[in-house]
Amino acid sequence: VRARLEAAGVGTGARVLLGSGDDAAVIAGGRSAISVDAVVEGVHFRRGQTSLRSVGHKALAAALSDLAAMGAKAGEALVALGLPADLAGGGASELLEGLVAGASEWGVALVGGDVVAAPVLFCSVTVAGPLPEGADGVPRGGARPGQLVAVTGELGGAAAGLLLLDDPASGGGLEGGLANSLRRRQLAPVPRLAAGGALADAGATAMIDVSDGLGADARHVARASGARLVIDLERVPVAPGVEAVARAAGRDPLDLAAGGGEDYELLACIDPAAFDAARAAVRRAGDELTAIGEVRGGEPGVELRGAGGELRDPSGFDQLG
Amino acid sequence: VRARLEAAGVGTGARVLLGSGDDAAVIAGGRSAISVDAVVEGVHFRRGQTSLRSVGHKALAAALSDLAAMGAKAGEALVALGLPADLAGGGASELLEGLVAGASEWGVALVGGDVVAAPVLFCSVTVAGPLPEGADGVPRGGARPGQLVAVTGELGGAAAGLLLLDDPASGGGLEGGLANSLRRRQLAPVPRLAAGGALADAGATAMIDVSDGLGADARHVARASGARLVIDLERVPVAPGVEAVARAAGRDPLDLAAGGGEDYELLACIDPAAFDAARAAVRRAGDELTAIGEVRGGEPGVELRGAGGELRDPSGFDQLG
Repeated sequence: VRARLEAAGVGTGARVLLGSGDDAAVIAGGRSAISVDAVVEGVHFRRGQTSLRSVGHKALAAALSDLAAMGAKAGEALVALGLPADLAGGGASELLEGLVAGASEWGVALVGGDVVAAPVLFCSVTVAGPLPEGADGVPRGGARPGQLVAVTGELGGAAAGLLLLDDPASGGGLEGGLANSLRRRQLAPVPRLAAGGALADAGATAMIDVSDGLGADARHVARASGARLVIDLERVPVAPGVEAVARAAGRDPLDLAAGGGEDYELLACIDPAAFDAARAAVRRAGDELTAIGEVRGGEPGVELRGAGGELRDPSGFDQLG
Repeated sequence: VRARLEAAGVGTGARVLLGSGDDAAVIAGGRSAISVDAVVEGVHFRRGQTSLRSVGHKALAAALSDLAAMGAKAGEALVALGLPADLAGGGASELLEGLVAGASEWGVALVGGDVVAAPVLFCSVTVAGPLPEGADGVPRGGARPGQLVAVTGELGGAAAGLLLLDDPASGGGLEGGLANSLRRRQLAPVPRLAAGGALADAGATAMIDVSDGLGADARHVARASGARLVIDLERVPVAPGVEAVARAAGRDPLDLAAGGGEDYELLACIDPAAFDAARAAVRRAGDELTAIGEVRGGEPGVELRGAGGELRDPSGFDQLG
């Protein structure tokens, strides 16, 4: 359906510099990137497992992550909220608190909202953010053969955190602070806005946020770029604690790091000559950058290769386990 | 909850010329008005009574109506769609067809979307649109004592159309073409973009779209302006056929015209000296403008006065009857 929406052929307009189909659209005139994301109870979160405060906070983070992946700054947000009758009181204000806390944290102006009755809680967040003077936004489709594929931060933490939330005993002997930090990766992701801006400045030509999972998101870049992304799984930075949680659950840690989603790190393609400067810029932004593969020509697609060079295909990761 | 969202205190930002709380927010840099609206199955529409095509079409119309009420043009739209499993196929494309048809009709670029699984169908539409060079957007809070209160088009048609849809026999002896046009007022409202632009140009200082009902929306203007809107119900233009449908249903036609919502006409406040030119401009835009009352000082609020000058308080109108 999303593809049909994108293909609908009305994605252009006098102010549209980049239309539907990327992480965010780019609109001329101060060049704002703008994007929408929705979460639904029972699909993206479960009440009881997640506080409504963190639902609101995370919904905003996920929307802003799309701006980060364009190299845009945070700007404004508009929220549409569907509220079941039992949440009309305190529950709704908890959720709003989470949104407001995130907005303060990331410098977002909440400029609009619609609150409607609904049989199930949902929250749709539209965000718009300015691009630097002269910047066009970093699309998914700009990967070129010969470039390096790099990711910010560490992967797998959100997926491991979800396993811990689903089954608190699943952590085995995991140290409490580490377990907490994994749960936080799942419940309170951070949009990599500063890193995204640094990567755009440093010459990244393709970028996406890792929300569906490394494999799935690399495929989005490969398809949009008409290129082949070859990723060396041994080089993927895995968050501390993921290995222990995976082993206790009888899962391969790489399933969580490459197949799990919701880490909201950034995947970028960048010329090898620009990589060191990009990494230094990302570090100044308080984040880390790791090269994990390269872009090649040939049949568009993704190769995830294990230690021995063998092809791997991490299973898709089920959001509700 | 909406008020709490608005009062949350993060409605300002470097690019925000007009934040939350009005029909749309205004963002500097090409000055875009931007707004969000959501509709939910069982709350705003019923499947079976309404085709999914018209759900999509109307959701976009309702969102654009907020831009019209700012004096903005249509620009871009982003859609978040919650889809029950039984609609993943044909139903979703019907809804998208409605959105795309509306987008073509009103010159909107669909620049983004998120489609998520949901137990109930919902559709949230964010729209952004440019304001004319130098224009700030017409807020709700600009009504001044001495001004005229005017509305575009005719009211009550959408409410009468809903009665006809709820009970096809309710039209009594209403002529078929007239019944159809009332049903269309409910199912396929038209955002008054050209009229809104004309009114803004002609000097309207306060404007709102009539979506909740004339009385309720006048109260929004009164409260935001700190003024008193005195409306003469005898002067309210009532759509043809509304009287017959109301009488057949045992309702007062003025209940439908002043208490019913979803007509998506515009209510504007404008100086008497500017009224004739404004009406001429609205007519050139293909619409009609009727003065129905005046703005006074004193306690902020709305007076709806009947034929004998008596105070009336049309009951709120239940969207699902």
